Amino acid sequence: MENKTQINLPDWTWEFHGHRCPFMPIGYRMGAIAMRELGIEKIKDHGAFALPEMGVGHPQTCMMDGVMSVTGCTYGKLMMERLNYGKVAMILYAPGKGAVRIYLKSEFQDLLGKEEFFAYRKKGIEPSDIPHDVTERAVKIVMETPEEGMFKIEKLPEFTFCRPKSSFAKAKCSKCGEYVFERYLRIVDGKPVCLPCSGFTEGNIVKL
Amino acid sequence: MENKTQINLPDWTWEFHGHRCPFMPIGYRMGAIAMRELGIEKIKDHGAFALPEMGVGHPQTCMMDGVMSVTGCTYGKLMMERLNYGKVAMILYAPGKGAVRIYLKSEFQDLLGKEEFFAYRKKGIEPSDIPHDVTERAVKIVMETPEEGMFKIEKLPEFTFCRPKSSFAKAKCSKCGEYVFERYLRIVDGKPVCLPCSGFTEGNIVKL
Repeated sequence: MENKTQINLPDWTWEFHGHRCPFMPIGYRMGAIAMRELGIEKIKDHGAFALPEMGVGHPQTCMMDGVMSVTGCTYGKLMMERLNYGKVAMILYAPGKGAVRIYLKSEFQDLLGKEEFFAYRKKGIEPSDIPHDVTERAVKIVMETPEEGMFKIEKLPEFTFCRPKSSFAKAKCSKCGEYVFERYLRIVDGKPVCLPCSGFTEGNIVKL
Repeated sequence: MENKTQINLPDWTWEFHGHRCPFMPIGYRMGAIAMRELGIEKIKDHGAFALPEMGVGHPQTCMMDGVMSVTGCTYGKLMMERLNYGKVAMILYAPGKGAVRIYLKSEFQDLLGKEEFFAYRKKGIEPSDIPHDVTERAVKIVMETPEEGMFKIEKLPEFTFCRPKSSFAKAKCSKCGEYVFERYLRIVDGKPVCLPCSGFTEGNIVKL
């Protein structure tokens, strides 16, 4: 079992996330277990990567906010990135300490999926508009189910992940005059420009 | 000016972020200004997208954690995504309310860049290892410089962004047996498999 105190999420994690739901705490528990398995504490800076296997166009991604909150592997510090496998799972990788993968067991996904909370979500009701007691029933299951009933834990001895080396070098775009980090500068008619000014993107109209 | 109280970051935003630095509060201020410009409050669920123009392989990405904290547009809720332009800027887009872009003025980037904090960072010293007073001098500048000295604000009337429609449909991978959301299932020898089992990725070895 992970340390019982780790299952009591600090209030600020809910404030950060914005609503009550069962998946933020699932991520929090996943992150806590992964840290215990690697023998690491919450990172202050850049000591570990959290790589959720979530993608887009499906629910339950809220788990990533729980993972960020407990591990300190935030998107802002570039220590979190989706792997886009569409699975309720995450990998925590601490260079020099190893990697571990946590998967939310299929049986638990089936069990939790029967909760009324998900009937509301499938109808398109936003989490903050779902009746409080309905949400809290689902959250309670997540908070109280023993670890072995929820999570599959695997060590990944061969796993590695890294970002490109960071550089402070930047220059101004010759069109709009704004600063751009060099990696993202492009050349048009022999002059350095930013991506939106280059025309190599769709500019300020973004459709995904 | 944005509301003065918005510049006083709640303590939990620092706890979430993991260390003191000048860029988390820059993002917090950007987000607060963008919300004011669109006339919206912090989102509980999925009412707005925050799209930082940051990329990878450069510093100052910490701003994204500040943006998430103040706007509620978190990575976990899929309401934040990097645009990878390599600029210290962000777009806040609230469907039906419009979009606004905030850029950290080049003159302010030059001014802040002279702080000793960045000399440490360029030597590879992690933020939490930089002397406290050095960091706090840089943070103070960020907290006290008037809005007009720091931020360029532009409305983007034509801007749009959306995610694919969310689906709860999922199935088990015929190899590993784990649940996969349908969008990420692949077919190998006529059978549905997850991406790592498909061999269409590099499996558990990820190098970026």
